[in-house]
Amino acid sequence: MKVELLVIGKVKQGFVNEGIAEYEKRIKHFVKFKINRLPSPKIKSKDEIQIVNAESLKLLSQIDKQDNLILLEIGGKSYNTLQFSKFIDKNINGFGGKTIFLIGGAYGVSDELKKRANHKISMSEFTFTHDMAQLILLEQLYRGYTVLNKIPYHH
Amino acid sequence: MKVELLVIGKVKQGFVNEGIAEYEKRIKHFVKFKINRLPSPKIKSKDEIQIVNAESLKLLSQIDKQDNLILLEIGGKSYNTLQFSKFIDKNINGFGGKTIFLIGGAYGVSDELKKRANHKISMSEFTFTHDMAQLILLEQLYRGYTVLNKIPYHH
Repeated sequence: MKVELLVIGKVKQGFVNEGIAEYEKRIKHFVKFKINRLPSPKIKSKDEIQIVNAESLKLLSQIDKQDNLILLEIGGKSYNTLQFSKFIDKNINGFGGKTIFLIGGAYGVSDELKKRANHKISMSEFTFTHDMAQLILLEQLYRGYTVLNKIPYHH
Repeated sequence: MKVELLVIGKVKQGFVNEGIAEYEKRIKHFVKFKINRLPSPKIKSKDEIQIVNAESLKLLSQIDKQDNLILLEIGGKSYNTLQFSKFIDKNINGFGGKTIFLIGGAYGVSDELKKRANHKISMSEFTFTHDMAQLILLEQLYRGYTVLNKIPYHH
């Protein structure tokens, strides 16, 4: 069982990078975890559709047929913290293979990638920056594992 | 017109402190803003109700009758980023006086404080740590002002 965060592009804000590193370390106490951070595709176009397509092709190349793909998106299903821990138990631990959490680029992902997703989840109605979305996901993923492992989490 | 974030207790995580300082600075480009951070009350009890009551009394002491109090709580109304910018326009700019965003302590706030709130808003179904809740609120508050001021915000 493996869990991966698949993202595209560098984290711009230093404090977010620190936070991501902190939760990455903590998540590893519970599960084999890595961040697969792809460089942004080198395209000159400023056209959003072309950017989305180029990014989505790169992202798709990292996903195998048998992988469990969880796409983060505004329109996805929302969970509270307890429900999310149950989601982890059922859909990550219960799956057993490799689970990939995917956070799309600034303009989202292609329809092809959306269709490929096994689950779509939404963290908030708020639109977060690409940086903050990663930090918030990792914090909740860590929190979910602490709940499953009955470890008290500071509030 | 003034906006204040009223919270109790120190931020534990260094990277969150940095992020809060960053968004505090950015919000100040748009509005008179300060963080009113109260020390945790010195009580020996580990009883959650006693902690909530002691904290809530301290918090209430910082709120004047005419202040516009916005309480962050799980059960509150949720907004997307655009709706939240309209909320700011209507209920902060439109109010004109002092608006206080209040994030309760680890165990929430007293019923008295809940009744005092003019608005209750929820950022997510997820329960965030007290640290992360402050960071996420400030980022969205900043983002809300950028939307109102038609400033492009990096995604």
